[in-house]
Amino acid sequence: MTAQNAFYAQSGGVTAVINASACGVIETARLHQDRIGKVFAGRNGIIGALTEDLIDTSLETAEDIAALRYTPAGAFGSCRYKLKSLEANRREYERLIEVFKAHEIGYFFYNGGGDSADTCYKISQLSETMGFPVQALHVPKTVDNDLPITDNCPGFGSVAKYIATSALEASFDVRSMAKTSTKIFVLEVMGRHAGWIAAAGGLIEDHGIPVMILFPEIEFDQARFLAAVQEKVAAHGYCTIVVSEGAKYPDGRFLAEQGTRDAFGHAQLGGAAPVVANMIKEATGYKFHWAVADYLQRAARHLASKTDVEQAYAMGRAAVEFALAGHSAVMPTIKRVSQDPYRWEVGEAPLSEVANVEKFMPREFISEDGFGITTSCKEYLIPLIQGEDYPPYERGMPKYVTLKNVAVETRLPAFEL
Amino acid sequence: MTAQNAFYAQSGGVTAVINASACGVIETARLHQDRIGKVFAGRNGIIGALTEDLIDTSLETAEDIAALRYTPAGAFGSCRYKLKSLEANRREYERLIEVFKAHEIGYFFYNGGGDSADTCYKISQLSETMGFPVQALHVPKTVDNDLPITDNCPGFGSVAKYIATSALEASFDVRSMAKTSTKIFVLEVMGRHAGWIAAAGGLIEDHGIPVMILFPEIEFDQARFLAAVQEKVAAHGYCTIVVSEGAKYPDGRFLAEQGTRDAFGHAQLGGAAPVVANMIKEATGYKFHWAVADYLQRAARHLASKTDVEQAYAMGRAAVEFALAGHSAVMPTIKRVSQDPYRWEVGEAPLSEVANVEKFMPREFISEDGFGITTSCKEYLIPLIQGEDYPPYERGMPKYVTLKNVAVETRLPAFEL
Repeated sequence: MTAQNAFYAQSGGVTAVINASACGVIETARLHQDRIGKVFAGRNGIIGALTEDLIDTSLETAEDIAALRYTPAGAFGSCRYKLKSLEANRREYERLIEVFKAHEIGYFFYNGGGDSADTCYKISQLSETMGFPVQALHVPKTVDNDLPITDNCPGFGSVAKYIATSALEASFDVRSMAKTSTKIFVLEVMGRHAGWIAAAGGLIEDHGIPVMILFPEIEFDQARFLAAVQEKVAAHGYCTIVVSEGAKYPDGRFLAEQGTRDAFGHAQLGGAAPVVANMIKEATGYKFHWAVADYLQRAARHLASKTDVEQAYAMGRAAVEFALAGHSAVMPTIKRVSQDPYRWEVGEAPLSEVANVEKFMPREFISEDGFGITTSCKEYLIPLIQGEDYPPYERGMPKYVTLKNVAVETRLPAFEL
Repeated sequence: MTAQNAFYAQSGGVTAVINASACGVIETARLHQDRIGKVFAGRNGIIGALTEDLIDTSLETAEDIAALRYTPAGAFGSCRYKLKSLEANRREYERLIEVFKAHEIGYFFYNGGGDSADTCYKISQLSETMGFPVQALHVPKTVDNDLPITDNCPGFGSVAKYIATSALEASFDVRSMAKTSTKIFVLEVMGRHAGWIAAAGGLIEDHGIPVMILFPEIEFDQARFLAAVQEKVAAHGYCTIVVSEGAKYPDGRFLAEQGTRDAFGHAQLGGAAPVVANMIKEATGYKFHWAVADYLQRAARHLASKTDVEQAYAMGRAAVEFALAGHSAVMPTIKRVSQDPYRWEVGEAPLSEVANVEKFMPREFISEDGFGITTSCKEYLIPLIQGEDYPPYERGMPKYVTLKNVAVETRLPAFEL
């Protein structure tokens, strides 16, 4: 059997540990050079495949590849670009096959979330649909934790650790100030459809902090919310609120879309946090502070969960091992084997069951009043944020790697996206 | 000489390391119990002294006091409450003296910024002005880094490390996404008058990141700013902007006060970050993300600078040692003795020269175009963010201490603030 090359690409929003999966793919492939020749990475994800902009990862040193394990974001660039169906855009699939043929690519590793699983599934069907033999494996990644079958998604544990820690620290701050100043702290977190990240904020309750969560899964009830905030302030002197960017009014409008206008009358793209903070101020007069974590949360490799880093690496490694075992159209998964002590192992899921399925917070993870998390939710979350895995520092800042990312010489005519 | 008790209070906005100063005060006082009886902490700062709400720190274990070194925010509560002049409110000073007398307090340690230095100075004058002998020492603290004489202020180094690290991580993120999605990342940081914290964002330039800083010290020139952003995006594909909450238009309006109104016509208290992000979007069409770090930055003990922690502790210890040596109306300072390798020692400044003086960024620390920092600024900043000093973790989250904070029995009638 002659060695085939592999294609690896990062897709969608990046995370603190997606490069750890890349590290797992590349390091494992390097152990099997009799079977996998070179790993070519797509520059800016699948676009790199379409435009034949491939990065030759074999030109990176072992040290630099190892440094991917502690470097956040997408080392090869990512993209938001979803392949249409074969019927709708046959031209793109034909181009992919041309590029794969030109560079002797027989393995396709796609590192992303639900949309990417769908793309990966389509690629895996190319042997059937277009007669081109390629093994396509999906490597799970999403801070949103919304992929089905897998117990959790690489990227989520680190965001959860960051949000839980940051909410705890900021709550200590507001607790200090509450007597004469700030009584309300509102933290906005990611998660447009699923409240997993917001749920992590609920972990601070066990540290004695009065906290309320606004989930996308629960219709926002303003009157009940404001009453509950006032109760917490009466009891504790302050209150922390963690609001998901996807929190919605009963009519479906996002809290973040309050119809605010700037001085010129343009719609103002604010966040949910200032809306919630101002709403509380209106109703109660309490002084507030608010923060919007945005990219800080998903890029915060300095506070990654060790469990998450290990799982992200393991998913990359397992994808290569599955490929070498002849599998295709599958995704490695994380299976929770035991709760306490937490143990997990690698599982395997068919992409046909993963693609385009979103996993929301189960109702039993959300407290009855809709503003908190239950014990079973805490039991689910805590193992995922276990352990610290600090990057090295130099001159006071993390020493993250930027790869050389040398392009492979092109062999085909240019292609218009 | 009979032992006198000490009063310690935290004042103004708290920091990631103000408790390290408290730890320095209390641990050092405990070594000298022949001279300093007990350390009473004001619950919620100076308000605790006025209302005779004193916390008996002698009831806290040595372990819990040691844990203050790695616990963010104000363990005894802080407040925003500035004593008026003796002429304007003699009643408050008389009350303080009553409380100090009733609890045999001969030492006053006040841990705060510029306003607090003024309060501390007034207290130090009580022997002269009201015939009450008390030694008053100020322990410097402010994330704003705006106290005079001292080379830097405890609290600042940790915020600077947090902002530099977070801006670096988020920039790696936007760099990954820029090809098809986000090209602009705007991070809003604290510093209403002085741009020290924003300056720390400039450190990412040496990591290859195109970054622009908006300082409160530099009038915002919208046209020149937008042109510079477009240049950076043309050259790098993306751009990070770090904006100080105090950034202002030439007419003195804050960028954050864009006159935005919500759906009900109420003035919207937005941040500077969304204003800058939307302004860039209007002019260029670039997709953006923005974050407002707010309390997350000043509470982020999980990413404290080791240098900062050591200096905060040393300032607390030095204040007690100065008191024992008979000094009053002074503040310990940090003196930079050598740049490379960085060495510092404890100095001493008279409060008369500290109170109500603000130290702004020197113009030579800001690049000629007004949007960056100079080499001398980097040389100033880098030693302050050196070293990591991680807190212990338990179940995936930092194990911060919450003290018992037992109140001392009152001996006086109540007092209306």
